[in-house]
Amino acid sequence: MFSSVRVNPIGIIHSPFRRREDTPIQPRRSTAIGEVEVFKKYQEGLEDIEGFSHVILIYRFHMSKGYRLKVKPFLDDQLRGVFATRAPRRPNQTGISVVRLLKREENILTVKGIDVIDGTPLLDIKPYVPDFDPDEKITIGWLEGKI
Amino acid sequence: MFSSVRVNPIGIIHSPFRRREDTPIQPRRSTAIGEVEVFKKYQEGLEDIEGFSHVILIYRFHMSKGYRLKVKPFLDDQLRGVFATRAPRRPNQTGISVVRLLKREENILTVKGIDVIDGTPLLDIKPYVPDFDPDEKITIGWLEGKI
Repeated sequence: MFSSVRVNPIGIIHSPFRRREDTPIQPRRSTAIGEVEVFKKYQEGLEDIEGFSHVILIYRFHMSKGYRLKVKPFLDDQLRGVFATRAPRRPNQTGISVVRLLKREENILTVKGIDVIDGTPLLDIKPYVPDFDPDEKITIGWLEGKI
Repeated sequence: MFSSVRVNPIGIIHSPFRRREDTPIQPRRSTAIGEVEVFKKYQEGLEDIEGFSHVILIYRFHMSKGYRLKVKPFLDDQLRGVFATRAPRRPNQTGISVVRLLKREENILTVKGIDVIDGTPLLDIKPYVPDFDPDEKITIGWLEGKI
């Protein structure tokens, strides 16, 4: 149960960003348009997704090799625990982004606000539903005042 | 690059829910307290996390075997594309939940609003930062009126 498990990409994220240094650090800082190509064998799983204005992409930071437990985030000049950041060099190299869904054509989603490098392997798509998120007071630790 | 990759659990989520049928369907429907045990080797990565009121848990739906591309969600009586739902029987069986962080003691996070079954393998933890989410008008497709 706690041994490693295999995950298989379900698609590829196409974006205008060819290099890491050109890539926006969060979706809200990006107006870039991208295409989420879901492999044909999974296309049926995209039905009903058009009703959602935003979707959550879960993907692999495939350009990151290995991980560090303390990282210097883009928005800070101090080392922070990696789980208190969204840095890519993390165990399991898993990233998430909420993007705006502009349209679906068969197995291709056109999205706005993409913030990943071209060719990123896609692991999952979920509908973005604000009602599933907390409605309590939020604090954001070391990020306070930096966004 | 698009071959399968291995992921290794970084910890275990302990919850009061021993059976799937007892488990709340979303964190906001849960006031349950759980403990997120991060394996000791990753403990240093938890530094600075205490400042955040909420964290995103990424985990494996380890009780789900295989997947279906059309599923009947808990909140609906029609079949929907699995990527338009949060159903567990999905490719790569990856789940995400935003929970409230009550405290950290060394490698243990005590959290509120847990909605996963006891023993769930943890893959990642990220800080929850509302400013990283969209500030546009949101629509929620088939879920409209059902939450």
